[in-house]
Amino acid sequence: MLRSHTCGELNLKDINREVTLSGWIHKVRDKGGLIWIDLRDRYGITQLLIEEGRSDASVVETARKLGREYVVKAKGTVVERESKNPNIPTGSIEIDLTDLQILNSSKTPPFTIEDDTDGGEELRMKFRYLDLRRQPLRKNLELRNRLSIETRKYLDDQKFFEIETPYLIKSTPEGARDFVVPSRMNEGQFYALPQSPQTFKQLLMVAGYDRYYQLVKCFRDEDLRADRQPEFTQIDCEMAFVEQDDILNTFEGMVKYLFSTVKQIDIPELPRVEYADAMKYYGSDKPDIRFGMKFVELNDVAQNKGFKVFDDAELVVGIVAENCADYSRKQLDKLTDFVKKPQIGAKGLVYVKYNEDGSFKSSVDKFFNQEALLSWAEKMNAGKGDLLLVLSGEKNKVRKQLNELRLEMGERLNLRDPEVFAPLWVVDFPLLEWDEESERYHAMHHPFTSPKHEDINLLDKKPGEVRANAYDLVINGVEIGGGSIRIHDRELQKLMFKHLGFSDEEAQEQFGFLLNAFEYGAPPHGGIALGFDRLAALFGGQDSIRDFIAFPKNNSGRDIMIDSPSVIADDQLEELKLKSVK
Amino acid sequence: MLRSHTCGELNLKDINREVTLSGWIHKVRDKGGLIWIDLRDRYGITQLLIEEGRSDASVVETARKLGREYVVKAKGTVVERESKNPNIPTGSIEIDLTDLQILNSSKTPPFTIEDDTDGGEELRMKFRYLDLRRQPLRKNLELRNRLSIETRKYLDDQKFFEIETPYLIKSTPEGARDFVVPSRMNEGQFYALPQSPQTFKQLLMVAGYDRYYQLVKCFRDEDLRADRQPEFTQIDCEMAFVEQDDILNTFEGMVKYLFSTVKQIDIPELPRVEYADAMKYYGSDKPDIRFGMKFVELNDVAQNKGFKVFDDAELVVGIVAENCADYSRKQLDKLTDFVKKPQIGAKGLVYVKYNEDGSFKSSVDKFFNQEALLSWAEKMNAGKGDLLLVLSGEKNKVRKQLNELRLEMGERLNLRDPEVFAPLWVVDFPLLEWDEESERYHAMHHPFTSPKHEDINLLDKKPGEVRANAYDLVINGVEIGGGSIRIHDRELQKLMFKHLGFSDEEAQEQFGFLLNAFEYGAPPHGGIALGFDRLAALFGGQDSIRDFIAFPKNNSGRDIMIDSPSVIADDQLEELKLKSVK
Repeated sequence: MLRSHTCGELNLKDINREVTLSGWIHKVRDKGGLIWIDLRDRYGITQLLIEEGRSDASVVETARKLGREYVVKAKGTVVERESKNPNIPTGSIEIDLTDLQILNSSKTPPFTIEDDTDGGEELRMKFRYLDLRRQPLRKNLELRNRLSIETRKYLDDQKFFEIETPYLIKSTPEGARDFVVPSRMNEGQFYALPQSPQTFKQLLMVAGYDRYYQLVKCFRDEDLRADRQPEFTQIDCEMAFVEQDDILNTFEGMVKYLFSTVKQIDIPELPRVEYADAMKYYGSDKPDIRFGMKFVELNDVAQNKGFKVFDDAELVVGIVAENCADYSRKQLDKLTDFVKKPQIGAKGLVYVKYNEDGSFKSSVDKFFNQEALLSWAEKMNAGKGDLLLVLSGEKNKVRKQLNELRLEMGERLNLRDPEVFAPLWVVDFPLLEWDEESERYHAMHHPFTSPKHEDINLLDKKPGEVRANAYDLVINGVEIGGGSIRIHDRELQKLMFKHLGFSDEEAQEQFGFLLNAFEYGAPPHGGIALGFDRLAALFGGQDSIRDFIAFPKNNSGRDIMIDSPSVIADDQLEELKLKSVK
Repeated sequence: MLRSHTCGELNLKDINREVTLSGWIHKVRDKGGLIWIDLRDRYGITQLLIEEGRSDASVVETARKLGREYVVKAKGTVVERESKNPNIPTGSIEIDLTDLQILNSSKTPPFTIEDDTDGGEELRMKFRYLDLRRQPLRKNLELRNRLSIETRKYLDDQKFFEIETPYLIKSTPEGARDFVVPSRMNEGQFYALPQSPQTFKQLLMVAGYDRYYQLVKCFRDEDLRADRQPEFTQIDCEMAFVEQDDILNTFEGMVKYLFSTVKQIDIPELPRVEYADAMKYYGSDKPDIRFGMKFVELNDVAQNKGFKVFDDAELVVGIVAENCADYSRKQLDKLTDFVKKPQIGAKGLVYVKYNEDGSFKSSVDKFFNQEALLSWAEKMNAGKGDLLLVLSGEKNKVRKQLNELRLEMGERLNLRDPEVFAPLWVVDFPLLEWDEESERYHAMHHPFTSPKHEDINLLDKKPGEVRANAYDLVINGVEIGGGSIRIHDRELQKLMFKHLGFSDEEAQEQFGFLLNAFEYGAPPHGGIALGFDRLAALFGGQDSIRDFIAFPKNNSGRDIMIDSPSVIADDQLEELKLKSVK
């Protein structure tokens, strides 16, 4: 037996108990006559005590050989500590050692195993098994595990079945790039790894499974932006005989359940914001509603006063930064520089200070008198002491720019606390979006998303205005999930393919099995998929997903710990009837 | 709202309730004035009633348009049935329809959606979404879901963490053939899909995670035998600071828990049979112990009596078939033909009938008198009316042959009831096995398996006799899982690699990251992996795993529903810098 207890459970109720612990040497303090050792395992840290003269000589000798991260088995008696540590659960006791065995030695780790390590990104990735020993990462993976357990519990209680769909599937040119897998048994042919189980979950609805879910790995061979991974995990769900509200209610329940059980936070009813309103009031389809600062459109009060920039603009729109009227010239210049960054691209920023004395000071005083500025303030519901920030230009562009500014102001004013959570639904997304490059409409969600019944007649004349039965779950400005009510009718699906520029043959070739399936009694159905890595990071109060994945890849898609991908043997390639070309 | 209830829940307590159901048309019986419809969904079947003259005319009209597998929404009132069906939970009621809407039509399915379908294997695979509508398959997938839920529940209660390991890993030449994935971002390089998360779970132990599990897909590019799948699911587990007994006890607990919660069967303590004994008494490392018929070695009573076949044999060994002394000549000939089949390869079969009158009749009466045969019977604990079946030859071969005969007799005597479950542990497997082809020893389990401490000194002289800390979980003659205590010591691991014929360089190149990790305080650890598809099939009382997988592949590794693998676009290959060669 290698241990009777873990390093996280002994306390005053165990005094005088004979125990055996195993773990890693976290720290040794050798004060001459007395040696204290912090022994660490997954469950915590327990202090070991050795006293020269009193403890067994062999124990003292072994203790003096120990280095950081050695693995030991330690026997002894639980005793009360003289100076207690109230910060850890085992802080009132220590183990008076009677036996100490080294189970394994350790080279000195290349960085310290502490909450704040001194290891750089590359080094920590290379020695991921050491990085994973650090408490912050352990807590992240523990949180992720807890989230998966509770997700499954909720969905199981709601009568969902977890059904595994295949990983070796078929490549389709639509959407992102597939990872492919050459088939040795079928010469010249390839499987593809799934970007999502989309078609399989729809087939399961056709098959009558009614409520499906799966926590499942998905794959996308994209050029990796920061914090994207070529493989990622999804909570993938589908329901039959439902309308949009049934799905929103079911997964709103899940969100509330997860926050309640995992974070002990009660979430009120989720707002349901139409896409058009999200764009109008936040300039984003994933608004961060932890704070207000909603957009106010000012065309009627700001135009036709002789300020050409505004007069020429499609939209004049602003936000109110409360209690910021005392911003210095320097602070305002920084905000102006921020919106003028190439990534944001505004030409300039108009500010209006609503001073405490009721007067206004603005960057456009030349064009707007006090009365005019008061009309802005009234329209924007601003009060004395507030700062008004206004942008203008082409509608879609200026909304995006003001969104960035709003988020930046939220950051500056500490309105984006990572331990505050504000989920919402964004609904009624457009069905199609215009793609400049290919000069045709693409499905905004995917080609199986159903249009709103009342908008179908717009498909021919104003395709861009057709709304979809599509919805996103957004939390704290991050898109956590999205889904739609699917088309279950073969004729409507054909019509969609036509509008997406697929010929009958192309549609049949790529989605034939799904179209065929729809001929055999497909029920009304819809679903949602949530990004599980992102959800875990959000629950952990962090922006980056990387430390919520045990073995992530770097931005070149490499696992630098195992040094993969790598060259394979020539005979492996030969068996696959493939040749590398330069 | 598409339904207020499912088709499986209404009964007498719901009489007079107004309900809405949705589902598939299972059957229509039109008796002129009265129409009965069986409406089916995942939860069951509910009978709908329409009466010409009384029911709304439009309902009658719609009902007469229905075909098999149409999808409908039906409104009506729950009423008591005149002739009840006690076989289904909803058999006491029917729905008196007030409204009926067709949600989707259906072509006539190519086979019937019944428990025993008329569809052939190919057709059922092509229309898998229809095959999956059949109740036996739905029950299989429901059972599989239940098993996964309970597996996770047990392991979570035991403080295991589920941790996801990567799917895009590194190819290693050891073991079975890898599926590989070309990397576009790293030209000329490949990922491999995991055959198991073996090294990652060991790294997680080095990282201090202590108790890991994962229900995970694994991949093997093997020539598919019947009932093998290129992708399969494993319950993969690893524990640190454990010895073999800790692991056996933990997973024996899991087996009992699963049988108890999923099948309501109490399993007694699992026998732990040494590999050597399993071979000696059953001729197999995966004995079916639902029945006895243990081997009895007869060399001392059967040799040196002038029967050359026995005298020349390394081993004479037999089994007792109880109450089979009345087997006819024809039956005995069939058994002889059975053991002489090329796959089994025995030269002949010796039988001895222990007649009810106490006399013996055997196929070797020429060499053995009644007294001699009595001594066999006594040694084999046979009684009057029993049949003794004896084989002889080279030890390992004859054991395999007698194993086949024992299983065949078990089958014939109905001793292998699929609803009776007899799990056991087979322990103390040999560490190494001789490979004729490469003329060297291979790891029987894998190269990280630890030898028994007391056997290490045999490694040089008698490598074949070294026992490993390796164990298999066997149920009803099927290997459900296997595992081992791993080597956690770098020096011992190096010694093992040496004995497996790896040079230091080869070992470093293939397993360098694991060997490096072992230098930083690897704890003692071990684990197990269970075949989840197989476990589900076993719990379902079936031999084949295929109908416990939603979308299986056929024996050529093809998914014939989606027609995969398939040819990919030339530019996809080009981007990967690959070329097909003939």
